[in-house]
Amino acid sequence: MTTPADNLRINGERLWDTLMEMAKIGPGVRGGNNRLTLTDDDKKSRELFISWCEGAGCTTTFDSMGNIFARREGTDPSLPPVMVGSHLDTQPTGGKFDGVLGVLSGLEVIRTLNDLGIRTKHPIEVVDWTNEEGSRFAPAMISSGVFAGAYTQEEAYALTDKDGLTFGDELKRIGFVGEEKVGTRPLKAFFELHIEQGPILEAEGLDVGVVTHGQGQRWFDITLTGFESHAGTTPMPRRRDALLGASKLVQAVNEIALENAPHAVGTVGMLDLYPGSRNVIPGSVSMTVDFRHPDDAVLKSMADAMKARLAAICAEGKLSEETKEVFYYAPVAFDETCVGAVRRAAERLGYKHRDIVSGAGHDACYIARVAPTSMVFCPCVDGISHNEDEDISMEWAKAGTDVLFHAVVETAEIVE
Amino acid sequence: MTTPADNLRINGERLWDTLMEMAKIGPGVRGGNNRLTLTDDDKKSRELFISWCEGAGCTTTFDSMGNIFARREGTDPSLPPVMVGSHLDTQPTGGKFDGVLGVLSGLEVIRTLNDLGIRTKHPIEVVDWTNEEGSRFAPAMISSGVFAGAYTQEEAYALTDKDGLTFGDELKRIGFVGEEKVGTRPLKAFFELHIEQGPILEAEGLDVGVVTHGQGQRWFDITLTGFESHAGTTPMPRRRDALLGASKLVQAVNEIALENAPHAVGTVGMLDLYPGSRNVIPGSVSMTVDFRHPDDAVLKSMADAMKARLAAICAEGKLSEETKEVFYYAPVAFDETCVGAVRRAAERLGYKHRDIVSGAGHDACYIARVAPTSMVFCPCVDGISHNEDEDISMEWAKAGTDVLFHAVVETAEIVE
Repeated sequence: MTTPADNLRINGERLWDTLMEMAKIGPGVRGGNNRLTLTDDDKKSRELFISWCEGAGCTTTFDSMGNIFARREGTDPSLPPVMVGSHLDTQPTGGKFDGVLGVLSGLEVIRTLNDLGIRTKHPIEVVDWTNEEGSRFAPAMISSGVFAGAYTQEEAYALTDKDGLTFGDELKRIGFVGEEKVGTRPLKAFFELHIEQGPILEAEGLDVGVVTHGQGQRWFDITLTGFESHAGTTPMPRRRDALLGASKLVQAVNEIALENAPHAVGTVGMLDLYPGSRNVIPGSVSMTVDFRHPDDAVLKSMADAMKARLAAICAEGKLSEETKEVFYYAPVAFDETCVGAVRRAAERLGYKHRDIVSGAGHDACYIARVAPTSMVFCPCVDGISHNEDEDISMEWAKAGTDVLFHAVVETAEIVE
Repeated sequence: MTTPADNLRINGERLWDTLMEMAKIGPGVRGGNNRLTLTDDDKKSRELFISWCEGAGCTTTFDSMGNIFARREGTDPSLPPVMVGSHLDTQPTGGKFDGVLGVLSGLEVIRTLNDLGIRTKHPIEVVDWTNEEGSRFAPAMISSGVFAGAYTQEEAYALTDKDGLTFGDELKRIGFVGEEKVGTRPLKAFFELHIEQGPILEAEGLDVGVVTHGQGQRWFDITLTGFESHAGTTPMPRRRDALLGASKLVQAVNEIALENAPHAVGTVGMLDLYPGSRNVIPGSVSMTVDFRHPDDAVLKSMADAMKARLAAICAEGKLSEETKEVFYYAPVAFDETCVGAVRRAAERLGYKHRDIVSGAGHDACYIARVAPTSMVFCPCVDGISHNEDEDISMEWAKAGTDVLFHAVVETAEIVE
């Protein structure tokens, strides 16, 4: 392993110009982007990306899921590549950086290597994963998921959008069904730079987050059933108020997350009551619970605690309940060597940093199943993402990309 | 005042047969009734009621709101009548007794007086108030409301149903616009027998409720606003979760009602959150609060306590709030002499009884503004009403009507 020299830096202004140029494709209505996967605008963004990569001397290919790989050859082409990237698709009212920064910072890594005349032993590849957002074709991260064996290609191709168009047909329509079978490409390592999409780094005045884990997630659908009755004529002691029970569960979810600080989060994002009349005591409430924690054992203990609290709430309120776990996503512990490369890069460059856990899902969380992987976070304003107001500074983008550059180049091994 | 003899009783089987005969008009789908106001079925029920009253020797008239008065003359026709009644209209999935019992028990009082050959000094009138339910033309109790001056006739006539038909046109269509100007009829007193629509009497094994008050009501619309953010990436201490605040308010409303036991009730019947996605922290919540108490000062103190709790909840959760009082209905204290007549009747007849507060609104609550008024409650099964499952026993109907008979006859004064 050859450590890159401390003074190596990427070109922040070039990176920023590239981000702003890409943002012209599929503009939003309030300064962000609307570039849903497999639309004509997605096709344009892919073609622009390919032209830029080829302009930087890369060879580009795409696989049967439309994942694009731009390769800068290593001195030993037989070695597996160090891959870097994210996604170019956006939410319908998305920002200019979510995913896009991760792809175009990879391009900037290549351009900087070219500028500096640095050769690496391993090839370096920049990837654009198809349909990370899942807004048009749910679920999210489908193509990195197929790459990692979490889904089959047939499942992905059969996904339909709200107009009944299929993923497979739309991928073919925009001309990005490659001959390479998805997932057959061996990797030395995978790195992904992404905006934090949360408020921690900005609030703490840091430049970079060293992502050690991806949160595990457990999602529940819960229905509480009491007895619907007249708000005027039913004395308090005789009530079986499903909303009163639900409100206690909302607080229990919050308390359980706080009891498992600092990494635990717990959220009730949906709550519907029946019959929903101002002078009728709610007879039933349907609600969701979303628990996340980077440690699977803690995550399970949170779910168990919630079930115990729910049982007590139902007993106290004479309610019945039905609980279904609708989604489970195991925590991801990123590769120690890759995490170390990111942390060392931040230290070498003098960027203020901290270890951080990713609360959201990313392509890296799937790729971690098949290759040593880690992530770099950069701050974003007020933690806002999936929103046209999403914003970052050029300095943040540069710091994250500097760190990415050092981690990637260290892993790909500089040839002196 | 001449007290009726202890052994006087109405004919329970005749009353029950009359109730069941009326229930054939506008049958529901599960054993109840669908007899919305000013429909053809409402017209049929009015015509049947009139034919029964005229068969019992009454003269019938109706006023400009379609309120029907069936009069059994007193020995002094110049004296104001003792009025008794309720409403024949039902909810769209209503029961056979809500309102109907109050009208047909009045008819049974007349029939029993005829059977026994009793003459009263004051005339006795049985009334069917138009559109008590408010299901087709909101608000409820509109015609007793106009009679008492709470609304104008013009306001009532202009009400529209979901098909755009007006109250005024529909009243005319069924032929019940009378020449008598509504509200010009002076009353000696008004009595209304009604099913409790709550669980207290049945649970306590009682025959009759002596209604002393109608609950005052204060209704609020409250919006709590926090900040919508990502359920995975927003640490617990940084959240501004509107639903967490709302859930505390649900409990505060419950606690405030319990603190003002036994008469207070407090209910959150509607709660809508935004944006309503399982992995987004709710940014805002709109909810309703319904407080009821028979003492206006206590009712106000409950509202004040709620506002103080809400302010503390918002401060703690970094939320803002907007509170609108959308409805205020002053408590009704029924006339002591009329309440006394009902209580004495229950005692004289040996029926198990208790004083009770009406949690729901009734025509009697408006008539109490213009005449000495009280109510008699009879139990109903499980407190269920506004539901086709609404049910009472013949014994309960008979006990309530016996008490009504004695209270009415005592007030109308028997002529020896």
